[in-house]
Amino acid sequence: MKGRRLLMIPGPIEFEPDVLQAMGQATTSHVAADFIEVFGRALERMRQVFLCPGGQPFVVAGSGTLAMDMAASNLVEPGDHALVVSTGYFGERFAAILERYGAQVTMVRAPLGAAPALDEVEEALGQRDFKLVTVTHVDTSTGVLTDVKGVAALAQRYGALSVVDGVCATAAEECRQEEWGIDICLTASQKAIGTPPGLALLMASPRALEAWRRRKAPVANYYADWANWLPVMEAYEARKAAYFATPAVNLVAALDVSLGHILAEGLEARFRRHVRIGAACKEGIAALGLTQLAQPAVAAHTMTAPYYPAGIGPEVLKAILEAGVILAGGLHPEIKGRYFRIGHMGSVSDGDILATLGAVERGLAAAGYRFEAGAGVAAAQRELLRGS
Amino acid sequence: MKGRRLLMIPGPIEFEPDVLQAMGQATTSHVAADFIEVFGRALERMRQVFLCPGGQPFVVAGSGTLAMDMAASNLVEPGDHALVVSTGYFGERFAAILERYGAQVTMVRAPLGAAPALDEVEEALGQRDFKLVTVTHVDTSTGVLTDVKGVAALAQRYGALSVVDGVCATAAEECRQEEWGIDICLTASQKAIGTPPGLALLMASPRALEAWRRRKAPVANYYADWANWLPVMEAYEARKAAYFATPAVNLVAALDVSLGHILAEGLEARFRRHVRIGAACKEGIAALGLTQLAQPAVAAHTMTAPYYPAGIGPEVLKAILEAGVILAGGLHPEIKGRYFRIGHMGSVSDGDILATLGAVERGLAAAGYRFEAGAGVAAAQRELLRGS
Amino acid sequence: MKGRRLLMIPGPIEFEPDVLQAMGQATTSHVAADFIEVFGRALERMRQVFLCPGGQPFVVAGSGTLAMDMAASNLVEPGDHALVVSTGYFGERFAAILERYGAQVTMVRAPLGAAPALDEVEEALGQRDFKLVTVTHVDTSTGVLTDVKGVAALAQRYGALSVVDGVCATAAEECRQEEWGIDICLTASQKAIGTPPGLALLMASPRALEAWRRRKAPVANYYADWANWLPVMEAYEARKAAYFATPAVNLVAALDVSLGHILAEGLEARFRRHVRIGAACKEGIAALGLTQLAQPAVAAHTMTAPYYPAGIGPEVLKAILEAGVILAGGLHPEIKGRYFRIGHMGSVSDGDILATLGAVERGLAAAGYRFEAGAGVAAAQRELLRGS
Amino acid sequence: MKGRRLLMIPGPIEFEPDVLQAMGQATTSHVAADFIEVFGRALERMRQVFLCPGGQPFVVAGSGTLAMDMAASNLVEPGDHALVVSTGYFGERFAAILERYGAQVTMVRAPLGAAPALDEVEEALGQRDFKLVTVTHVDTSTGVLTDVKGVAALAQRYGALSVVDGVCATAAEECRQEEWGIDICLTASQKAIGTPPGLALLMASPRALEAWRRRKAPVANYYADWANWLPVMEAYEARKAAYFATPAVNLVAALDVSLGHILAEGLEARFRRHVRIGAACKEGIAALGLTQLAQPAVAAHTMTAPYYPAGIGPEVLKAILEAGVILAGGLHPEIKGRYFRIGHMGSVSDGDILATLGAVERGLAAAGYRFEAGAGVAAAQRELLRGS
Repeated sequence: MKGRRLLMIPGPIEFEPDVLQAMGQATTSHVAADFIEVFGRALERMRQVFLCPGGQPFVVAGSGTLAMDMAASNLVEPGDHALVVSTGYFGERFAAILERYGAQVTMVRAPLGAAPALDEVEEALGQRDFKLVTVTHVDTSTGVLTDVKGVAALAQRYGALSVVDGVCATAAEECRQEEWGIDICLTASQKAIGTPPGLALLMASPRALEAWRRRKAPVANYYADWANWLPVMEAYEARKAAYFATPAVNLVAALDVSLGHILAEGLEARFRRHVRIGAACKEGIAALGLTQLAQPAVAAHTMTAPYYPAGIGPEVLKAILEAGVILAGGLHPEIKGRYFRIGHMGSVSDGDILATLGAVERGLAAAGYRFEAGAGVAAAQRELLRGS
Repeated sequence: MKGRRLLMIPGPIEFEPDVLQAMGQATTSHVAADFIEVFGRALERMRQVFLCPGGQPFVVAGSGTLAMDMAASNLVEPGDHALVVSTGYFGERFAAILERYGAQVTMVRAPLGAAPALDEVEEALGQRDFKLVTVTHVDTSTGVLTDVKGVAALAQRYGALSVVDGVCATAAEECRQEEWGIDICLTASQKAIGTPPGLALLMASPRALEAWRRRKAPVANYYADWANWLPVMEAYEARKAAYFATPAVNLVAALDVSLGHILAEGLEARFRRHVRIGAACKEGIAALGLTQLAQPAVAAHTMTAPYYPAGIGPEVLKAILEAGVILAGGLHPEIKGRYFRIGHMGSVSDGDILATLGAVERGLAAAGYRFEAGAGVAAAQRELLRGS
Repeated sequence: MKGRRLLMIPGPIEFEPDVLQAMGQATTSHVAADFIEVFGRALERMRQVFLCPGGQPFVVAGSGTLAMDMAASNLVEPGDHALVVSTGYFGERFAAILERYGAQVTMVRAPLGAAPALDEVEEALGQRDFKLVTVTHVDTSTGVLTDVKGVAALAQRYGALSVVDGVCATAAEECRQEEWGIDICLTASQKAIGTPPGLALLMASPRALEAWRRRKAPVANYYADWANWLPVMEAYEARKAAYFATPAVNLVAALDVSLGHILAEGLEARFRRHVRIGAACKEGIAALGLTQLAQPAVAAHTMTAPYYPAGIGPEVLKAILEAGVILAGGLHPEIKGRYFRIGHMGSVSDGDILATLGAVERGLAAAGYRFEAGAGVAAAQRELLRGS
Repeated sequence: MKGRRLLMIPGPIEFEPDVLQAMGQATTSHVAADFIEVFGRALERMRQVFLCPGGQPFVVAGSGTLAMDMAASNLVEPGDHALVVSTGYFGERFAAILERYGAQVTMVRAPLGAAPALDEVEEALGQRDFKLVTVTHVDTSTGVLTDVKGVAALAQRYGALSVVDGVCATAAEECRQEEWGIDICLTASQKAIGTPPGLALLMASPRALEAWRRRKAPVANYYADWANWLPVMEAYEARKAAYFATPAVNLVAALDVSLGHILAEGLEARFRRHVRIGAACKEGIAALGLTQLAQPAVAAHTMTAPYYPAGIGPEVLKAILEAGVILAGGLHPEIKGRYFRIGHMGSVSDGDILATLGAVERGLAAAGYRFEAGAGVAAAQRELLRGS
């Protein structure tokens, strides 16, 4: 569909060729011996990628929103209090989902581009007994990175479950689910996980499962109910067939390949690579005189959200597309038309960053913006060389 | 994964090569102009394939069970009465889903292998005011085909909404949603629709949408709530970008290709082909002396469910697999180990039926079953020649 | 291109899905380390598949005819005598090629459908001093199988080099190059080797190389000259880069995968499988009352060449195609319009044979031919069950 | 094989995704109606791409060297005089090929990195009666671009046939075969034609065919003999089946897709794009302080051949590879270890150039070379913006 153009949005991303080949394989039975092996291995690999060997992985056909829905519907009982640490669109969405299942939601927000301080989170936690705290690791709408380690530690101290929306972060931003005591970490396949869209991924801690087991009200959402999925996940991981709903065979096969790549690189190297690549992109954008939505101290390494220069709007994305790179427009409702988004996750390479900045320069030039030609790519390249 | 072995189960099925190629394409942005065109066209094609030009199509990442969940959660309000016409495992599942959303469920069942008579359905409908009636067009666990036209007509007469679970039927068994007045027809991508698993498909009549719009209680399931999806489906069909959750780009592209094949063949020809192919498979199985779960008068054209001969059990499936064909074991909990299932949907060809029966013969022979060698393939071939 | 139709011609054949995936991979450099490994391994595997560990493999972009050309141009010096054992079109072609390089060619022929007796070959060999003897293992135009072991033994006894055109045979018909003393065995990728067309494969014995090294006249054909290719083949097999002409990277990668499949099956099992499958096809064709070009005693196991029944001609192939199977028309100029050809090599399965005979029956029926419906598939199936 | 690394060598190149998908399609019969259409169309498209509507295209399984061999073997008769305008390795190879077929070869050479002046060519032409003149449009070993228009005009004036080796040029460097009176233009699929390696392409003028028809000696090379291929090419272009040797079905299908892309871009735009991209690469390399093999006035637009800086050798290519870009080492025997080669042909984009220069910078930095970080990418980007 996209030919040789680069897809540099905050998901879906550029996938590894062998991941795409796994997508295009002739589908086999969901209970064929080789598929059971593939699915079982993917679940095992998820534990390693989430740095949560003792967790319970769930892989279900759906989007990242389904993963959020699964967390909320399985943990929340009507009347439960939930604290939402919001840094953008997806924090607000989590609140809406939690409320759907009967939660009383308290929000901790920060100004656009900032993240709430841990103090504020702690203060909120002290107000009442929260069943759970959610926090968006990187909000795809703003590119703000939060201190999920700190939030999880606070949640634990205050006896709440911690839920990390890792949709734009997991497998790229540093996250040590088990060590940091995060109860649920969830994401979607098409982000740093490196698999085409269509899979919701969720890792639950024993404490989260225990809370679910103790609930009194039935889970209000049938499709997302862990009672349906848990036996299936356990069976496949034990290399046995099981059935609740037909798994998305090709996507699961692709996921297994992609998780294999992630583990081959190593999580530590992968976290470092995203820091380095993210810095290069941000340096390049800054060198062109563009400001960014996220404050530098809380800027994600997986994406960059620059404001358009004065007098230039979303139409510049078309020129950038013609220059060979697909970028994303704004998403946050308050400022949708004033900024754009660059994703740099997963298989992203040095070359992708240079190509992207080159196309941004070309688009800006076509739109009449004045800047030193080459300044963006040169700044990014200097950062890349520095970070080698 | 499966090499050149034939996948002859009641889904996933053998997919057309260009459908698989669409799966393996490099993913583009979910708001790229060409993807908007692809998704929009797929939605239009769905109307034609469902024979429901005036319906509202929904395509969502998930399984067939999500489609059932979507129907139930959007239509049912706590306390509503629902009538379930059950012919197996998936009828029972629909009851469970409806109850999850607060429905009072009345079941109309028939003995294993049979379908309830329309009289029985009508009698039940007369008992009280039902908000909706569900019926499984072909229950994948039994291979029983129901008279969905008759059930829909009764539902209409009694003022109930009709919901057809078409998971093993839609795009293969005759179904004229608009003409027959079916309010919801739902299926999964990996069946006769001919696309790898991972998409839930649902077509809602204006009456169904109207009922949803008039509901007082919020939809209990966030992910399945039409309020989230309707603007997205309308936007893509109008060739505009919209966002609720990232669509499964590759699966949607594959769906579009597959729906194109279905329309190129033509629905009428496709219904006839499934009748002819189904008859050939059943003749072949009968000629080997095997009896079938579904009574002849209500046997599906998309699958065949033979009982194992005396003394032979599920281990014969392994020999059939070694002979090159992947079949499915039993699914209905009462008789799971006593029968097996052959799917013949979508791209299925005459040759597939012969190859399948050949492998069944080889498996049975290896298991020590006595029969006239070649009788199954010959009987199938006679039927195929007769039906040409 | 062909969708789910079966390609049952004497090459190209149905290729394994992972062979096709190797074809579709992004091409890498012909001197990339991983490609050097792939090419080197393919050469090693060729030795095993040709049962000629001490031979020298050549893999060159080109067709099977290039392999013949390479054998002739490297071995023949003007005035050399060559004996051609011809069983059809490709024997005649070998004579033409040999003459092009200055050979004095003597032909040993048999009536159409027969193979010359070894006595006749020996008698010819006794007439004069032959530099080489060529023999077509299976002539694709007639489906006649020759006794290449016997011919090679005679050649050795009379001091001639033996050249086997294995284009429709190698990796399917029993052939033990080293043990049987065959000096050159050559084939094309798209036959029983199981790789799409585009590669000429040749295995030369030390004696053949020695004869080439001692030649006085230069090799007349530049592209085919071993002097250009030998260092390249030796280098890749030693896992070193080398360059003469850019190898067909994707085809070589596909070849490596396919040779891997052949070795995984095992040559002995593979020879047996082709005997069994070939017998089934021939039984099925005979049961329909069709006679075959090749006499039963010399009929190939890789293909079947039936005569059309009276009153039916090549137009029946179109009906067979519409029934889902692609067959080939006649090739031998004398009787081109009177017979057709079915290939059954490589990945061919029991199911493929049944599907093919089913389509042949359907085509014949459409053409008005009278036969017992199902007789062909039943006879084939009986043979398959017998041979299990 | 190469994952997401960029292949930036002077062939094979980065191929368009749909070209690779055509490679991976299930192979059909070489005489199937749809393949005949594909092959026929590809031949027609070749006429347009070579800007030679009145020529005769040949597409044969083999490498670019086979195309050279075909030109030489079909045109040369023993004793003919041939003039070779040589600018590197491939000029020398053409001489060797011509001599193989009995030509008396006269060389016109220039110092490494230069091209002979037209005066020198004319002077040589005046010495005796030449049957043909060959000239390498871009010699892949040096990156020197020749004035093929001028050479062809001289050849015509002096009554010789002109043969252009367009292997690293055709479909990228300006060439108007018919208008410029070039008698043969030949290339290989894996260069600017944009198709994986394995096809030799040749376009012969009526004058070239006439010369071949008038020859007295038989063509010494059987496989390359136009007498074998001409009826096949004519038949496919007339949409009829024909057989000499099985065409490389998948490669031909891929070729057709790629030629379609070339024509969609338009030859004039394509020539301009290569000029612009080539200039950017050269600017970038120069900004890093590296000198180039080819003199600026005769430097190709399809490749760049920089010398390594002092103290750095071929090992830097490994560091560049690790930085994500595959480059090629030197090829010219005299200076093999002193320079490297960057290809920029076909689907090459602005982003590819930036990514390549970024990787070159990173490799050089790792090797200890001192330069202003980012200077290469910035210079290339300035040139790209200038040339937009």
